[in-house]
Amino acid sequence: MKLATYKDGSRDGQLIVVSRDLSTAHYASGIANRLQQVLDDWNFMSPQLQDLYDTLNHGKPRHAFSFDPKQCMAPLPRAYQWADGSAYINHVELVRQARGAEMPPSFYTDPLMYQGGSDDFLGACNDVVCASESFGIDFEAEVAVITGDVRMGATPEQALDGIRLVMLANDVSLRHLIPGELGKGFGFLQSKPATAFSPVAVTLDEFTTGGESAWDKGRLNLMLQSTWNGRKVGRCDAGPEMTFHFGQLISHLCKTRNVRAGSIVGSGTVSNKDWSRGYSCIAEKRAIETIQGGKATTDFMKYGDTIHIEMKGRDGLSVFGAIEQEIAPPPLVVGQS
Amino acid sequence: MKLATYKDGSRDGQLIVVSRDLSTAHYASGIANRLQQVLDDWNFMSPQLQDLYDTLNHGKPRHAFSFDPKQCMAPLPRAYQWADGSAYINHVELVRQARGAEMPPSFYTDPLMYQGGSDDFLGACNDVVCASESFGIDFEAEVAVITGDVRMGATPEQALDGIRLVMLANDVSLRHLIPGELGKGFGFLQSKPATAFSPVAVTLDEFTTGGESAWDKGRLNLMLQSTWNGRKVGRCDAGPEMTFHFGQLISHLCKTRNVRAGSIVGSGTVSNKDWSRGYSCIAEKRAIETIQGGKATTDFMKYGDTIHIEMKGRDGLSVFGAIEQEIAPPPLVVGQS
Repeated sequence: MKLATYKDGSRDGQLIVVSRDLSTAHYASGIANRLQQVLDDWNFMSPQLQDLYDTLNHGKPRHAFSFDPKQCMAPLPRAYQWADGSAYINHVELVRQARGAEMPPSFYTDPLMYQGGSDDFLGACNDVVCASESFGIDFEAEVAVITGDVRMGATPEQALDGIRLVMLANDVSLRHLIPGELGKGFGFLQSKPATAFSPVAVTLDEFTTGGESAWDKGRLNLMLQSTWNGRKVGRCDAGPEMTFHFGQLISHLCKTRNVRAGSIVGSGTVSNKDWSRGYSCIAEKRAIETIQGGKATTDFMKYGDTIHIEMKGRDGLSVFGAIEQEIAPPPLVVGQS
Repeated sequence: MKLATYKDGSRDGQLIVVSRDLSTAHYASGIANRLQQVLDDWNFMSPQLQDLYDTLNHGKPRHAFSFDPKQCMAPLPRAYQWADGSAYINHVELVRQARGAEMPPSFYTDPLMYQGGSDDFLGACNDVVCASESFGIDFEAEVAVITGDVRMGATPEQALDGIRLVMLANDVSLRHLIPGELGKGFGFLQSKPATAFSPVAVTLDEFTTGGESAWDKGRLNLMLQSTWNGRKVGRCDAGPEMTFHFGQLISHLCKTRNVRAGSIVGSGTVSNKDWSRGYSCIAEKRAIETIQGGKATTDFMKYGDTIHIEMKGRDGLSVFGAIEQEIAPPPLVVGQS
C-alpha cells in the first residue's frame, strides 16, 4: 500500500492512503491520524489500512479525492531517528579519489553512516530554504526505509524483517560547510539542513509486478532519476551496486542500541560505476570532472534552481511520486535586524 | 515547575507534575498525556500545568501520590532531536592533550556538537545495557535543555528564549569504539548508545531561591555531582566554565535549519580547570592520569558498576532527582542464536 501525510496546519499532518496509480486518496482518520501511530502499532493497524487501500484501488471509496503531491508533508513530518548510510561505495570512491584521499580498506566491510536531524523534514514539494548560496547547495537522491522496532544486536537478516516502508529522499547537503565541519571530528550538523522525502511511502509488496519483485533482500532494483533545472542528470540503478543493503545498514545502526519504530534509514547517494548513467548529486559530477580534467566545472545550486527526483516501477508508473523542489532564500522575518 | 513521565507500558508514558521537593506527584492527564504535546503547544498548556504544580506544592492535590523516580521514563522517552555540544572547553583540552593532539584555535569560537540518536532514551533508573564490557563503557554527566521552536538563523540571545525545560543527562559513551568511528569521518553512531535523563525536567524559574537565580543567561551556576560505585568522583561547577552557553549551542544548531519543539540540546561533559573538583566522565580522569603519569590507570565501567548523577539547588535540595543506573549485559533473547 501507499501512505502519505497531508498538510492540515498541524505538526504531524493527516495520514492518507493513496491509490497505487497515485491518482486518488482517502483520509485514514477512521483508523489512524498520524503515520507514527501506525508504525507504533503496525500489526494491528496496517491490515485496516490495507483494506482501505484495496477499496481505493478498486474505485469504490466512500470519500476519495484527487491526490495532490503539493499538499504532502514528508510521510513522517518529524521522526525519532534519521540515520543515513553511504551504501554505494562507488560514490565514496569517486569523492575521495577527486580529493586525493586514500580509500580505507575497512570502508568495504564497515558501512559509513551519520546521524541526521529529524525534527523538521520537508514535504516533497517544499522549497529548500538556504541562508546563502555560498554554502554550496547540493541535492542527494537516495532511497530510504522506515523501520519498526529492531532490537539491539539484530543481524542483517533480522533487520530486514524490521523494514515497514520505503520512500525516496533528497538529503540536501551544504558542500562548502562540510570540510570544516567534518574536520572538527564530530560529523555533520550545519552542513545537513532539512531533508525532504517523496510524497508517498510504500510497503514492500508494491515492488511486485507480474509476479516478480524489484525488492531483493534489502536492495531495490529500480532506476532513480534526477532532473536538475529540467535536464535529466541521473538515471542510476539503485540495486546491484548498493554495497551494503538496508538490512546491513540497520544492523550497523543497532549494534549498540535498540532501533525503535519510526526510524528512517537512508541509502546515501545512489551511484553507479558506469558514468554514462549520470549522477544523483552534484558533488559526484564535480568529482568526475576533477578526475578527468583537474578541476570541477559544474557549480552547485543557486536560488531558483529546481530538482526533480523520481523512480518508476517496472510497469513504468511512478512508485513514490516525485520530489520536486526549488532552492529559495529565507523569507523575510518581520522585526528581524 | 517540575515535569516527569511515568511508565505506563506505552512508548511515551504518562505526563506527571512533580512537587518542588520531589515528594509527591499528580497525573497531568486532565491537561496533557505526553510531554511532547505540551512542548508543541507550550503557551496554552504550561499555565495549566503550573496551576496544578502550585496546588501540589501547597499540599492540596486531588489525587496526589508519592513520587518514585524508579517509575520514570526519560521526561521525553523519545524525541525528535538530540544534539549534544561539548561546551566545556577544558574537557576538550584535557582529552586532546592526553593524546598529544593540538587544540585548533577555532574550538574556542565554534562549538563542537554532534547529532545523537533520540528514538530510545533511558529513564533515570534504567540499566545501561551494553553488549560487551570491552567497548570501554563510560558515563558523561551533563546538563541538557529542551527547546520550543527556534527558527533558522536565530541569534544566541533569541535562542535563549526558546529554552523550555532543563534536565540532567548521562550521555553514555563507548570509548573504545570512538577512535575507529570518528576516524571514518561521519561522527558518532555505535559509540553513543542510548542516553539517560534525570527523573524530572524543570522550568527556569525553579533555579530561583531567595530572589536570586542560579540560571544566568544560558549557564547554570550549580554543582553537578557524579558518584561512581558509591564513591563521589566529581563535584563540578556547571556555570562559569561553560565556554558556550545554551543560547550559543542552540544558535549553532539552527544556523542552517529550524529547530523544532521538543529538541534536546546537551552541554557535553561538565568540566572544571580545578582538578580537585573531580570529573564528570572517566575519560577525563584517564586523560589527567596520562598527562601526569604517562598512562591511564583507571579502568572504564564493568557490569554491575553504578553511576549516580545529581545536582542540588542553593537550598540544598535535589533539583532534578538523581540519575541512578547500573551497567548490565543484554537480557537473553529466547531463540537468539
